[in-house]
Amino acid sequence: MYQVEKINRKIGFILLSITVSMLMTACASTKGGTSTGPLTIQQQGSFAVGGTVITNPGTFDPIKDGAYNPVNQSSTGQTLHGDHAYVFYQIPKNARKLPLVFWHGHGQSAKTWETTPDGREGYQNVFLRRRFPVYLIDQPRRGRAARSTKPLNITAAPDEQLWFGIFRLGIYPNFYPEVQFSKDPEALNQFNRQMVPNTGSYDAQVNIDAVSSLFSKIGQGILVTHSQSGGLGWRTAIKNNNIRAIVSFEPGADFVFPEGEAPDSIKLSGRTIIPPSVPMADFMKLTKIPIIIYYGDNIPEQPSLNPGQEQWRVFLSVAKQFRDVVNRHGGDVTLVHLPEIGIKGNTHFLMSDLNNLEIANHLSEFLKMKRLD
Amino acid sequence: MYQVEKINRKIGFILLSITVSMLMTACASTKGGTSTGPLTIQQQGSFAVGGTVITNPGTFDPIKDGAYNPVNQSSTGQTLHGDHAYVFYQIPKNARKLPLVFWHGHGQSAKTWETTPDGREGYQNVFLRRRFPVYLIDQPRRGRAARSTKPLNITAAPDEQLWFGIFRLGIYPNFYPEVQFSKDPEALNQFNRQMVPNTGSYDAQVNIDAVSSLFSKIGQGILVTHSQSGGLGWRTAIKNNNIRAIVSFEPGADFVFPEGEAPDSIKLSGRTIIPPSVPMADFMKLTKIPIIIYYGDNIPEQPSLNPGQEQWRVFLSVAKQFRDVVNRHGGDVTLVHLPEIGIKGNTHFLMSDLNNLEIANHLSEFLKMKRLD
Repeated sequence: MYQVEKINRKIGFILLSITVSMLMTACASTKGGTSTGPLTIQQQGSFAVGGTVITNPGTFDPIKDGAYNPVNQSSTGQTLHGDHAYVFYQIPKNARKLPLVFWHGHGQSAKTWETTPDGREGYQNVFLRRRFPVYLIDQPRRGRAARSTKPLNITAAPDEQLWFGIFRLGIYPNFYPEVQFSKDPEALNQFNRQMVPNTGSYDAQVNIDAVSSLFSKIGQGILVTHSQSGGLGWRTAIKNNNIRAIVSFEPGADFVFPEGEAPDSIKLSGRTIIPPSVPMADFMKLTKIPIIIYYGDNIPEQPSLNPGQEQWRVFLSVAKQFRDVVNRHGGDVTLVHLPEIGIKGNTHFLMSDLNNLEIANHLSEFLKMKRLD
Repeated sequence: MYQVEKINRKIGFILLSITVSMLMTACASTKGGTSTGPLTIQQQGSFAVGGTVITNPGTFDPIKDGAYNPVNQSSTGQTLHGDHAYVFYQIPKNARKLPLVFWHGHGQSAKTWETTPDGREGYQNVFLRRRFPVYLIDQPRRGRAARSTKPLNITAAPDEQLWFGIFRLGIYPNFYPEVQFSKDPEALNQFNRQMVPNTGSYDAQVNIDAVSSLFSKIGQGILVTHSQSGGLGWRTAIKNNNIRAIVSFEPGADFVFPEGEAPDSIKLSGRTIIPPSVPMADFMKLTKIPIIIYYGDNIPEQPSLNPGQEQWRVFLSVAKQFRDVVNRHGGDVTLVHLPEIGIKGNTHFLMSDLNNLEIANHLSEFLKMKRLD
């Protein structure tokens, strides 16, 4: 039974790859192209969702303490609403049923999914054109959801050469050969300016709770994660049944495994990473929904001295174990390592890379095959 | 000559008021209404604009320092791009020539102009429907432009009862009678969650420079400010001739005056406010463009012990002096204190108040009269 399912899955994947190849050929003329025609938006807006309230003891006195005093403001008896997510949504005309809910990664905001660093349309517009409602999240303590119940000291420490490596644009100062990132200096300028700091201490559970609240509010949808939100996405799907599928772009190491089936701890650049375990009943929820995971290029097979590559070699190997464990328990995980299907040069930001339409086409085909569109 | 201009202006204002009253009657059926039909968006996207780069001394080593280390990250030889503005724009089909560039106030982001706290359409949608291109700013060190070249300690101190008063919702915990703010608790929840902290030390010049860069990039437009950005707006218009008009919702006390013509310093709740002066040649630039300033309700005429009202009494009195000085020098400033034209109950956030369409109609009529539409 398990073998049959595995073979079925393999055939499914081969068919998917062939279909996508055909589609890519058919769509060659739009590759790298920008918008075509206007977007017809039935509804758009924004809101906060989830979060908590903290209250200071005492009674607020609107006369005595009601003046703005940036130096010595009393907070007696006052409240702070924080730790919510901020969400901007657009629903196109003749929309498909299931929305795509886009969740950014570490150091990012919903900007990740908007205009690409080189000025083309991001997945916000690309999937609106494909008639998906889109929801773009700024997670708690980030961007327009910056109001945090916990303090943080923002250091403004320069770190962009680090991210140039970890985001696999290249080995600083050199881009990888044939990288899918524009060499126009303005593209790197825009890319660097996408970064935003945390505005409160990082707390995975706060993020999971807020995004789960979003799905409780909007109903069923497809969660699209990137990098750090990958690990959060697995747990959010365990928490909320409204997540009907997960699309995970380059998730980090924090895949979840059933208790007793997690890989051993991993040493990575002096850190020890322990893949987290969850009770089997929780884990099994991940076997009930289609999951597709994408990784880009320049991830070596053998250990590398370059930390910007080594990290992804390790994460990809854990991803393969995750796929195998979920599928062994009857799940439906597809892992796409893009170079293996002939798509080369992708960075960690494959949704905004120069060939992002190719990858969008692959994803559209997957959603179609799984009847999620 | 000056008297004739003054009379002309007065007649213009009376005509404006009559026209707006007629318009308001004509539009009564849409008052408080939400969207009608889809929006057709020719183009939408986002970008960073302006800002600076800081660079640490030394040489970055991608092998030695290329691993993410949240505890002890080296920043040797690394850069940080910060202090830019983030801008989301939408250009409707058959767009008018001049865009509206919306700039939020203290503690806010572009959310100010999106969905209102009670869930109706904000000025983003309202003016898209009126065929204006819209640009929504997150100013430097705020929201999605949070990356700052200067550090800051975010304290997460509760302060919402303070803002309830200063934003003139009421005297906490009571709303003002007939306030144009929904009594649904969810509206106040959403309103509180709109707040976002600074992510670097506040620097007026950094904000002015970034928004001026925006106008250099997009060309001529109409700047719409709120509260804190009011004071920044005067200086941005002095710096950049592409600002063709200013719409200022409840600007703060930092109006600019020509040297020698500034009002005396003002005492306000223990602070001393000195209205800033600029060289006459700079000031005269403000006399070349139409300016309209709006203030809402519950601003007393006599000194008040309630700091949430007293502040606005003082600011409104400085606004009147600003209007008179600009107009004396040949300028074109209209100051609308809404209760004086029969529009009651408005808070500090009149663009998102329950009657925001009435005020949008007034503004549309102003833009039409000034041939800015």
